[in-house]
Amino acid sequence: MRASFYERNRRFRIGEAPVPAPGADDVLLRVRRVGICGTDLHIFQGHLDHRIPLGGTIGHETLAEVAEAPASSGFRPGERVVVEPLKTCGACRACRMGAAYLCYRLRVLGVEEPGGMQEYWSVPAARLLRVPAALGDDEAAMIEPLAVATHDVRRAAVKASDAVLVFGGGPIGALIAMVARQRGARVVVSEVNPFRVEILRKLGLEVVGPGQDLTSFVETWTGGDGADVVFEVTGNPAAVRAMTGVVRVWGTISMVAIHGEPLPVDLYRFFARELTMHGSRLYSREDWEEAIQLAASGTVTLAPLVSRRVPLESLQEGMEEALRGGPVMKVLIDLSARA
Amino acid sequence: MRASFYERNRRFRIGEAPVPAPGADDVLLRVRRVGICGTDLHIFQGHLDHRIPLGGTIGHETLAEVAEAPASSGFRPGERVVVEPLKTCGACRACRMGAAYLCYRLRVLGVEEPGGMQEYWSVPAARLLRVPAALGDDEAAMIEPLAVATHDVRRAAVKASDAVLVFGGGPIGALIAMVARQRGARVVVSEVNPFRVEILRKLGLEVVGPGQDLTSFVETWTGGDGADVVFEVTGNPAAVRAMTGVVRVWGTISMVAIHGEPLPVDLYRFFARELTMHGSRLYSREDWEEAIQLAASGTVTLAPLVSRRVPLESLQEGMEEALRGGPVMKVLIDLSARA
Repeated sequence: MRASFYERNRRFRIGEAPVPAPGADDVLLRVRRVGICGTDLHIFQGHLDHRIPLGGTIGHETLAEVAEAPASSGFRPGERVVVEPLKTCGACRACRMGAAYLCYRLRVLGVEEPGGMQEYWSVPAARLLRVPAALGDDEAAMIEPLAVATHDVRRAAVKASDAVLVFGGGPIGALIAMVARQRGARVVVSEVNPFRVEILRKLGLEVVGPGQDLTSFVETWTGGDGADVVFEVTGNPAAVRAMTGVVRVWGTISMVAIHGEPLPVDLYRFFARELTMHGSRLYSREDWEEAIQLAASGTVTLAPLVSRRVPLESLQEGMEEALRGGPVMKVLIDLSARA
Repeated sequence: MRASFYERNRRFRIGEAPVPAPGADDVLLRVRRVGICGTDLHIFQGHLDHRIPLGGTIGHETLAEVAEAPASSGFRPGERVVVEPLKTCGACRACRMGAAYLCYRLRVLGVEEPGGMQEYWSVPAARLLRVPAALGDDEAAMIEPLAVATHDVRRAAVKASDAVLVFGGGPIGALIAMVARQRGARVVVSEVNPFRVEILRKLGLEVVGPGQDLTSFVETWTGGDGADVVFEVTGNPAAVRAMTGVVRVWGTISMVAIHGEPLPVDLYRFFARELTMHGSRLYSREDWEEAIQLAASGTVTLAPLVSRRVPLESLQEGMEEALRGGPVMKVLIDLSARA
């Protein structure tokens, strides 16, 4: 079968590999789509080399069909599934607290363990969820990032009439904005990339764009109170500088972005307004279930976020394009296509 | 009457002033004790000059007796009272949310409004709480900082068996530690000042002292999990650097200290462990009521925290001593004494 291998130094190799042999509790999948995620771009740049084996296969935003499944798994060949890409220990403090996705010995499929950027993939049956027929393959490949967004919005306890500000209108920021809007919140996205601004506006989202002063916008928008909830999804130090200034008393900052270096934070503002900031990472099973429901019902629109679909042979170019930014949103690897 | 006046540039003047004329809803107090607080030291250093009128009278940790009170107030001359030193608007978003102590137009008695460092003080009757006979004057003067501590512990939702780490064993840190211990938590205080370490140990508190490695201590203490709750009460950048590394998955950081400048914070750790940080400031009425109950029952011991008592005429020296640090905990101004 065809597979991709991470060779470090910003290089992926495409080559042949034996079809994986599934264990007793596993299902063998034929992969159809894999999204390139922000985490994958961190991998590409070498930031996670301590977590990835040399020559490892990445990819954790996947849509696949069942190729072979034991009868006990409840799955049948041909069914379309998405994969919750987590291996947890079940015994540590996080697992015991109900935070298994933060397991102290967590292994992520597509990071520490083999991921979906290969033709066939063996995955524990317990990690699969069925995809409704209403969803096309491209949309279904977006369920994983949508589960990130449902998790983020749930954890931030967004409610009707909240003024929600999302820093960053990439795929995750756009999905958070749509999920928050579904909760009844008033949502604004701060984004400077004109290509992304146009997509966000087509999705009916309000955008504070380049050249607009965010602080005075929020001041007017909220009658001087500040936003109820702010999501930081840019990974940009400028957003971290700005975020504390635009939140109301007792307001919430959700830290979704990955910041590799410690950044200056206005702790006085935390004290003075009793702000709360929490990190938000990955998802529970309920976040996946909500994501599938929102996508299948059409409440959250996924197709406009896919800006490009390339075959596995173009993984290297796809990574470079996604990293370069500019006129790009979500890049999907299409494993059903040949270059 | 004798009164003190903040002249800026680290100077207080003691002089004469007319006894204040109480309004219809006010009680005239004869002040007995005023504590010097961390906020007062910020005032002394000029950090709050934008909030304090020139020649203003500060002091918000007070014990007083009623001198004159209208019958409608429910108070009688001679009763001992403490003062919740807040003026709130009752109309802004914070007031409407039940966060009146964070009122967008908050005025603090002893900061924007006249405080207790004067012989007589006129205060709205609604802001007074009676002091039980079980408490001496010095102890009663510590009820305000104790209400800060009950607020901090309540807001951090400390519960039995939690591993609680307090950065900083000054008066507030020591009080937080004692309140958390009363909740059934396992408490450790990180403090380097040997004078304070000795007082903390006399109070039966466990201390990680100078020369001990905090990170490896917490690692062993919590079996590798990390602390459940961390209070940052030092105002020191070193504590801000350390705090994110010693908290468990889903753990809580309470920001009690005032940090004048933005400081580097490890936001990746917030993401990876889904940490929560919230600011904690001032108090609600229920925090005062709990403080009085804990003090009067002897559950929290206040007297050992008072390291010095000086007359109003020595306010300047008291400020300098408290700011210098070293062998000092709480300095009280005793207005019933003459120099």
